Amino acid sequence: MQNSQKPFMITRNLDPENQETPIHFINEDLIGGKLFYRRNHFSYPNFVSTFYWLPVGGVVHYPKTFSLKEILGLPPRTIKTVLECAGNKRGFFKPKVFGDQWKKGAISQGSWKGVSLRTLLEYTGIAETAREVIVEGYDFGERTDSNQIHYFSRSLAIDKALHPDTIIAYEYNGEPIPFKHGFPLRLIVPEWYAMASVKWIKKIIVIDYEFKGPFQAVDYVYYPKKDSDEGKFPVTTMGINSTIQQPLDRKILNTGVHILSGIAWTGNGLVTKVEVSVDGGINWSSAQLVNVPERYSCVRWSYKWEVLKTGEYTIMSRAADSAGDEQPKGAMWNRKGYGYNAIDVVRVKVE
Amino acid sequence: MQNSQKPFMITRNLDPENQETPIHFINEDLIGGKLFYRRNHFSYPNFVSTFYWLPVGGVVHYPKTFSLKEILGLPPRTIKTVLECAGNKRGFFKPKVFGDQWKKGAISQGSWKGVSLRTLLEYTGIAETAREVIVEGYDFGERTDSNQIHYFSRSLAIDKALHPDTIIAYEYNGEPIPFKHGFPLRLIVPEWYAMASVKWIKKIIVIDYEFKGPFQAVDYVYYPKKDSDEGKFPVTTMGINSTIQQPLDRKILNTGVHILSGIAWTGNGLVTKVEVSVDGGINWSSAQLVNVPERYSCVRWSYKWEVLKTGEYTIMSRAADSAGDEQPKGAMWNRKGYGYNAIDVVRVKVE
Repeated sequence: MQNSQKPFMITRNLDPENQETPIHFINEDLIGGKLFYRRNHFSYPNFVSTFYWLPVGGVVHYPKTFSLKEILGLPPRTIKTVLECAGNKRGFFKPKVFGDQWKKGAISQGSWKGVSLRTLLEYTGIAETAREVIVEGYDFGERTDSNQIHYFSRSLAIDKALHPDTIIAYEYNGEPIPFKHGFPLRLIVPEWYAMASVKWIKKIIVIDYEFKGPFQAVDYVYYPKKDSDEGKFPVTTMGINSTIQQPLDRKILNTGVHILSGIAWTGNGLVTKVEVSVDGGINWSSAQLVNVPERYSCVRWSYKWEVLKTGEYTIMSRAADSAGDEQPKGAMWNRKGYGYNAIDVVRVKVE
Repeated sequence: MQNSQKPFMITRNLDPENQETPIHFINEDLIGGKLFYRRNHFSYPNFVSTFYWLPVGGVVHYPKTFSLKEILGLPPRTIKTVLECAGNKRGFFKPKVFGDQWKKGAISQGSWKGVSLRTLLEYTGIAETAREVIVEGYDFGERTDSNQIHYFSRSLAIDKALHPDTIIAYEYNGEPIPFKHGFPLRLIVPEWYAMASVKWIKKIIVIDYEFKGPFQAVDYVYYPKKDSDEGKFPVTTMGINSTIQQPLDRKILNTGVHILSGIAWTGNGLVTKVEVSVDGGINWSSAQLVNVPERYSCVRWSYKWEVLKTGEYTIMSRAADSAGDEQPKGAMWNRKGYGYNAIDVVRVKVE
């Protein structure tokens, strides 16, 4: 169709490629295929996937290198989960912070099929002294703050690594994982921000010390102060959050009925409610949940708003979860801009 | 390539389609083809272009309906020009205004081939009482502020209509005009913001009164006051303007040499200089102009910046033109958010 219309990714950077999902224009589901946000620290890696092997070593009893075929033969586990970049909504911090100015679309959802990491570790055994498991990707490069080459690596504490839902995935939505999202193997860590879900896994190493790689100890750390590292703590679990997909901020609407819609998610249990305000937070009403809340997954919500009076309106959404957390009025400011989860706000004009 | 990277349009709205050029990721030229920004007031029109005729009437001596073939047989004129949406950079106004939040990419450039509007009017003649020429498009719909159906129409004062560079275009960059950009005929009005360059021309009417259509007398009017129409005046000529394409706002850079680059343009004569500041506007240096300034066209500029000290930097660009205009420090705020042309500013962190 010469006049068909479709949304596109929002380009934040090209190399490394960082592109955001056009979240306001996805109505049916977050499972976006081509619109799955892309978040990279380095250029795409080059490796020969036909000769792919996965070594698992470190403080284990029997170091082992798995072939892809072996991994595909192990008992599978499928996890439908949200993946949210820790920098999602960074562009909304005030005062503003440096780094890619993600708005609301560094989030996606899909089904990942793979094998539990614990299943691989049952083959190798782990030493009693084991503290963490490092997962290293094939992607590498220089950082702005150092002249050394670093591979993208992250570690998990043993407990999290051994959780059965921490998987080494080989399929996404029933297909091999798209290259840009970690083919052939990607770690999937539900509940955590997506920096933990290492792509293009190169090797797995069990260690008996605390991992201090720069993507663990420098980045993906909350620094509450602008000029010192005082009070820092690591980025892990996703906060309770919600996003208004429609209407867009600063939209001009006519009088009548409008459907407000969006999503809500949490890294802590289940989303228990989503509320909407159309008067800047004075009064709140329950939004309708379009699907039943499931663990690790997004809830879609909607709210029918009839507006007869022209003027400016401030629309808000706030979600709460089964851990008892509720979105805060303001996000916790931190220097690198992680974990923004304030009550979502859009302003519209009705004329 | 499984790992190729390319920029995409930024979706502001789908129907009517409003998509922005990813201006920060276009290095070579603004002639973007698929990345030419899309700006529509209504859904794409439906008309049968194989039976296309262009009627020219009103207060003329000899009303005439031109066939496309006739128009293609008239002496051609090719104009290379910037087209900039009047709402380009609307998202930067403070206080914020309502409407699509365009950033810096509602601008494009290309060569339009067609016939001067005055050539058509030489065939019909015009009455001595003629004051304006209305050009009406095939696109129509409801507005948020009325329940009536309106076609998108704009008028030009006779002088502007008779300027030889005001053309009825049938080619864009050597090809028929893409449907989304006005096929088969589009009015091109150089120097003016692009609302004047009516797409999908349906008819041309010479009038002896002042046209008051809503896209002339309600929209595309500067309203300097928030709550009254006092001091309003029409949007016409593009202001002197410049845009920093690289680096992006809030980018984290390493120490060393960085090339700052961008574009500058004006609706008043020629761009005469572009200056850059890397210290928040205290000191200014001339940028290098990559191409010779031409009337109606963008100038590309660059500036080599060597930065050895870590810290935060405020980078600015400002352009001046042969009419003696220079970009202001702050844009003239107006309720509908047109004509933003303040000195461009990005902030970066060097580490």
